Amino acid sequence: MDYSTSLLRLIFLALGGALVVLVVHSAFRLPGDIDTTTTSLFDDGSCTRFSPWACRQGRGDPRSKPPTPRRPSHESDVPRHPLDPLTVREVNRARELLRAHPPFSSAPSSLLVHSLELDEPDKPVVKSWRKGAEPLPPRRAVAVVRFRGESHVLAVDLGEGGAVTPLPVPASGYPMMNMDEQTSLSFAPFKDAAFNASLRRRGVRVSDVACLPISLGWYGPAEENRRLIKSQCFSTEGTANFYMRPIEGLTVLVDMDTAEVLHVSDRGAGIPIPAASNTDYRHGHSMPSSQGLGFQKVRAPSMEPPAGAPGFELVDGHTVRWGGWEFHLKPDARAGMVVSRARVQDPATGEHRDVIYKGMASELFVPYMDPTEAWYFKTYMDAGEYGFGLQAMPLVPLNDCPRHARYLDAVFVAADGRPYVRENMICVFERYAGDIAWRHSESPITGMDIRESRPKVTLVARMAASVANYDYIVDWEFQMDGLVRIKVGLSGILMVKGTEYSHMNQVHRNEDMYGTLLSENVIGVIHDHFVTFRLDMDVDGANNSFVKVEMARQNTAAGESPRKSYLKTTRHVARTEKDAQVRLKLYEPSEFHIVNPTKKTRVGNPVGYKVVPAGTAASLLDPEDPPQKRGAFTNNQIWVTPYNKTEEWAGGLFVYQSKGEDTLATWSERDRPIENKDLVVWYTLGFHHVPCQEDFPIMPTVSSSFNLKPVNFFESNPILRQRPTQENDLPVCAAATTTAA
Amino acid sequence: MDYSTSLLRLIFLALGGALVVLVVHSAFRLPGDIDTTTTSLFDDGSCTRFSPWACRQGRGDPRSKPPTPRRPSHESDVPRHPLDPLTVREVNRARELLRAHPPFSSAPSSLLVHSLELDEPDKPVVKSWRKGAEPLPPRRAVAVVRFRGESHVLAVDLGEGGAVTPLPVPASGYPMMNMDEQTSLSFAPFKDAAFNASLRRRGVRVSDVACLPISLGWYGPAEENRRLIKSQCFSTEGTANFYMRPIEGLTVLVDMDTAEVLHVSDRGAGIPIPAASNTDYRHGHSMPSSQGLGFQKVRAPSMEPPAGAPGFELVDGHTVRWGGWEFHLKPDARAGMVVSRARVQDPATGEHRDVIYKGMASELFVPYMDPTEAWYFKTYMDAGEYGFGLQAMPLVPLNDCPRHARYLDAVFVAADGRPYVRENMICVFERYAGDIAWRHSESPITGMDIRESRPKVTLVARMAASVANYDYIVDWEFQMDGLVRIKVGLSGILMVKGTEYSHMNQVHRNEDMYGTLLSENVIGVIHDHFVTFRLDMDVDGANNSFVKVEMARQNTAAGESPRKSYLKTTRHVARTEKDAQVRLKLYEPSEFHIVNPTKKTRVGNPVGYKVVPAGTAASLLDPEDPPQKRGAFTNNQIWVTPYNKTEEWAGGLFVYQSKGEDTLATWSERDRPIENKDLVVWYTLGFHHVPCQEDFPIMPTVSSSFNLKPVNFFESNPILRQRPTQENDLPVCAAATTTAA
Repeated sequence: MDYSTSLLRLIFLALGGALVVLVVHSAFRLPGDIDTTTTSLFDDGSCTRFSPWACRQGRGDPRSKPPTPRRPSHESDVPRHPLDPLTVREVNRARELLRAHPPFSSAPSSLLVHSLELDEPDKPVVKSWRKGAEPLPPRRAVAVVRFRGESHVLAVDLGEGGAVTPLPVPASGYPMMNMDEQTSLSFAPFKDAAFNASLRRRGVRVSDVACLPISLGWYGPAEENRRLIKSQCFSTEGTANFYMRPIEGLTVLVDMDTAEVLHVSDRGAGIPIPAASNTDYRHGHSMPSSQGLGFQKVRAPSMEPPAGAPGFELVDGHTVRWGGWEFHLKPDARAGMVVSRARVQDPATGEHRDVIYKGMASELFVPYMDPTEAWYFKTYMDAGEYGFGLQAMPLVPLNDCPRHARYLDAVFVAADGRPYVRENMICVFERYAGDIAWRHSESPITGMDIRESRPKVTLVARMAASVANYDYIVDWEFQMDGLVRIKVGLSGILMVKGTEYSHMNQVHRNEDMYGTLLSENVIGVIHDHFVTFRLDMDVDGANNSFVKVEMARQNTAAGESPRKSYLKTTRHVARTEKDAQVRLKLYEPSEFHIVNPTKKTRVGNPVGYKVVPAGTAASLLDPEDPPQKRGAFTNNQIWVTPYNKTEEWAGGLFVYQSKGEDTLATWSERDRPIENKDLVVWYTLGFHHVPCQEDFPIMPTVSSSFNLKPVNFFESNPILRQRPTQENDLPVCAAATTTAA
Repeated sequence: MDYSTSLLRLIFLALGGALVVLVVHSAFRLPGDIDTTTTSLFDDGSCTRFSPWACRQGRGDPRSKPPTPRRPSHESDVPRHPLDPLTVREVNRARELLRAHPPFSSAPSSLLVHSLELDEPDKPVVKSWRKGAEPLPPRRAVAVVRFRGESHVLAVDLGEGGAVTPLPVPASGYPMMNMDEQTSLSFAPFKDAAFNASLRRRGVRVSDVACLPISLGWYGPAEENRRLIKSQCFSTEGTANFYMRPIEGLTVLVDMDTAEVLHVSDRGAGIPIPAASNTDYRHGHSMPSSQGLGFQKVRAPSMEPPAGAPGFELVDGHTVRWGGWEFHLKPDARAGMVVSRARVQDPATGEHRDVIYKGMASELFVPYMDPTEAWYFKTYMDAGEYGFGLQAMPLVPLNDCPRHARYLDAVFVAADGRPYVRENMICVFERYAGDIAWRHSESPITGMDIRESRPKVTLVARMAASVANYDYIVDWEFQMDGLVRIKVGLSGILMVKGTEYSHMNQVHRNEDMYGTLLSENVIGVIHDHFVTFRLDMDVDGANNSFVKVEMARQNTAAGESPRKSYLKTTRHVARTEKDAQVRLKLYEPSEFHIVNPTKKTRVGNPVGYKVVPAGTAASLLDPEDPPQKRGAFTNNQIWVTPYNKTEEWAGGLFVYQSKGEDTLATWSERDRPIENKDLVVWYTLGFHHVPCQEDFPIMPTVSSSFNLKPVNFFESNPILRQRPTQENDLPVCAAATTTAA
């Protein structure tokens, strides 16, 4: 190599380094560095390092300014309910205790916090607690940390005693990534010469490159004993939508603990980076001048409450009361959003009755269907790898949630153990969508002049996680008839693959593209999404049974009836876990009841709630395929396990690079008794996604849901007590322009 | 019998007769009687006979007053679109022509009209018609009438020529019932001595009895060659909800043409009539005094448009324009609601492109699962037997539809051929439900400060049919991303069975109750609902192909990849009808595309729309079971047939007492070619209903839906053109009381 090339390379490296520094706002941090300047309970360095909008100060997109009035600072928050998440003060206390605990105390700046959460008190304690009547149960935290290359799980007593107690550590796998490393590792490739050489070959400037950290799953012993991540990169030149501009086939293997680049694989020679044109999505950018198209004229109506409407109550920061429902609602770094102690008022007695003790997304599984070098490993488990809640950015008022929604903030924990606030992470709103809760008219046949109708009004709790390209919208919707709907919306942007093809007529017959050609040089790769919900049901009490009410054809006996057949139900009470492993079949339908076998209605039916599937999808992967072993909780649509506090995360506690040795599927194989016991129901909502051009350059929201519906729970349906809307129930609004008839 | 008993009986009969007369407001009419006094184009006798609310005058429940300003009279309406339904004038013209046509002219008062509808012009004529550029195509009607015990199908030329032309009559079965006879036949049993004796035995007063006309299906030759109906009765004493008070086991067989009672079957000895208490549902009736329950306090928000919002346009009475969509919307006596010429604006060109030529509910099938004498025959086909549209009563403003909805009236035809108006039969409204059309946020990983979100705004067209106890709500929802959602909601009241049981502990082990004990002496009988939609898709043109995109596991070759498997798609173009008979299987998933094989996107994908199922149910009855033969269109969830104007009603033209010889299933057996042809897609939405106590005494709405979604239809998704809601887009409303934080 000659002198000028060396100089160029030196300049290049210096520029590259400077750019890296610039890009991360002087917040790039190697493991081991800790910012020790603190002027408040918040680490301003943390805030800056993540992004302006992670800060309490609320910097960021002016369009997403929080609703007024400003909420009080969280610095002085105290817990008011046994299930309340750790407060800022509690996080700081836990941090102190951990840093003072051997061996961490020998080098506290090397202690990296991956998870620091409330250790919820035991169920009986929570259920018997009465606000005002007794103090909160002792507050405890559970921490997952890494120290000098080893993982630790610890219980932390936040009270006076301050004990830190080690807990068992899973045999394989690694903890959820923390936000710091997800961000910092994106920059690791830039230090590597081979990587930079690839960029040059591809004709893209370093300053135009953004890289994402991609979990690599587990594919054999070669990748064990080392915490690894793969990085793939995109061109940001000319568009905000860099996802549509992959630098295809370039994969960088990085050691997560040292940020060392271990291997650069470039299989993308000859694959162009797709063009930037027509990919931007930001309102006002890159859109052709208006042609007065119909959809551009649409202006969203607003949901406006009438004068005197009580709406919903948000009490003590996390308790929601509305329409006979009461529940505790909180953010969670891993699960996203947790609904607890959901209880509904009985119309007959006025008393609240237990329905759901705790419900949340427990794990996701998002396998891509391309076995080639740069794609085979993309089999994300977004909760246990990335943190479903950590990925939730502030909701956009008026658009993510309606005008009169109210918002909850989250307190998350940075890698150095310091708390930071994610504002507007959850919204709650009362919804009227123009739907009908119940109606009945009498027809002329009966001659009765009856016109009854009741509007459907519901309450929605929502969060939206942005896991790189994909946005997941999770709604819990509560109805007045006791039904709870859990809905997942997929939105955001596709993960696409670069290709040399610019037209289908170039593709060889029978060639497997692993997806759809969406635009010139862009393939949308086929993939599945599975979201597994953990539903700790306590139907009218903790001890429940799971009953399959199977529907099947019953043939009539000869001469019994002019009918040859009818549908007959048979009840099967699940005795052990294997009785409750359910695969849905349209031609072998069943209802799925969770009943309280000791509580019966007046006429003798057991009270219950049922799981009601709607559209969903099942995983078709080989059960022995490594990702399917890790995601084995998707082998069935429904599972039921006996309540076990440690069985919370369907893929296991340490999902990252796990082998799938400790999943919902492995627990359920124990075939434990589940009759008249405290049960947990697991339901997986699935989506098959075969991309199409409508998903380019952005993917309009696709949703699916399932319901938890009362079955013989109420002697009398609460809907009967609802009143119809009358003229004087309407809000008074300035007249809008109405269109001509 | 002694003198006093005879006198009592006489008095009783006289009273009964008088009450019958009273109950029907002096409108009881035997077949053959025609009211000949006419002072306007409307037969005020018709109005009175049906019910006050069938009248143009809009009598009825003051709470359901139509929205102001009052719509103009329909008397002077003229058709303005080739697909517009027959106007009042046209109905009267058709009536004149039919009454003047031999042999009807010999006894015009004996001519009974069962159906009188527009005979739609041929597709090419409709598609080439341009408003203002040319006159309407010639207007024609098709009539189904009965005259002296025989059915006739006739084409009527409404123009100057006025020709009446006989058309083929189905070999078996009878026409849809007309509203007159549905009402009048309810009273037929009261003339019968055996029936009255049964009532006495049951201890119920004649004046407290309401009877319903129940289609009897076909169960063999014994019931052929005679138009028959079964009547079953209920006690109206003490409640409006007589459905909860069946006079169980009492079935009256009536000749529909003569109103003669042929047979009275009473299998209900010893079965009490369930109590009236706690069954009423009318707001303000029978509810215990308020206990301040949560759900009683809820007040529905209202969807309020911002100032200057264009909303939607309703042009020429039946054309709807909104958000890039344009479609023709009309009521139909049999199908309920018909959406035609649905076209969506292309963002790139601004031109409207064909999507759906005509979509509607084609038939229903609602089999009850009880083979006993009084129940085996309950296998309703609500469109072809009762008229799905005829059963739609006026929608209740503010509750059935939101405040700013607009309404369409229907012009229906009475048995004597005279028109009458059903006001507020369809509503149209713009909806914002707080949902997200699309969103994307960048996470700190990428360091980009992006928060994009667009609210989901849609347009809904709705009707609600009240078929005796059940209310069916049908919504067509149009989204800005080109998706169309068709949703069916089941509401109203269950059809229940009286029983001697008042508690489950009285029921013998293994006894088949055919349903659930809902209250003392009340069983909710298991049943299914199927609604089959006929979707004449014209995706970017009439000639389409049906493509199954099957998803299946593909195993990798040894050594090919660390992955053992992935999901691979295979496209199967349906060549003939049998290729397109689809049963859904969760573990053999597929997409279902309707493509235009001659139109490709820029990168070479065929443009299309896909049918996207969600939750549904399949019929499990024996295919040879008589009701299943009649309802054989439910043998598959999806069918595709070549366009054929006569193949409109999935159960056949004459469904009443049909044998199932002319259904969608029999047509599809012809296995006709369907590749690159004008196609019709049929989709069946199904529900299994195992009743539970929440369905007593009324049934909160349960809904299911399916979507028609663009697939490679748009080069660029219209969603990109949508703008987010901003502060100055909000309506100005007086502040509601807000709750404390």
